[in-house]
Amino acid sequence: MGRVSGKIDDAGHLKAVGAALRQYRHDLGWSQEALAYATGIDRSHMGRIERGERNLTILNLIRIADALQCPPSKLLILAGM
Amino acid sequence: MGRVSGKIDDAGHLKAVGAALRQYRHDLGWSQEALAYATGIDRSHMGRIERGERNLTILNLIRIADALQCPPSKLLILAGM
Repeated sequence: MGRVSGKIDDAGHLKAVGAALRQYRHDLGWSQEALAYATGIDRSHMGRIERGERNLTILNLIRIADALQCPPSKLLILAGM
Repeated sequence: MGRVSGKIDDAGHLKAVGAALRQYRHDLGWSQEALAYATGIDRSHMGRIERGERNLTILNLIRIADALQCPPSKLLILAGM
């Protein structure tokens, strides 16, 4: 068993997750402000998450999914994961 | 739209994710040491993740899933999410 190659795809993974969150939010017609308010996540942090500039935590993924009323796993599936 | 209730279920969510990771690792016959090595995650940190004592990041979830050769979304589905 080999080590998982570390940093190579990290930026791509975070961009994919962020893009999926943003797309799903858009599809529901929610503003970023509304999602930030509903989750209690700072709006500027939410913007960085959606741009793939932050390594979001599982609890924030769950908070976002709860606010958008979908399972957290679905957001990862939409991100191709 | 209301705010997502914050801290109430956080511990439960982290325990569910950690238990799902541990169960899946067990099912594959992997030791915690082997998974820690394959992911590059410190073994003591891996233990805390599996016990639900750490708010793991999406990149570490992806690393663990890659090492276990399953989609990250599947690990959340196994955690009931």
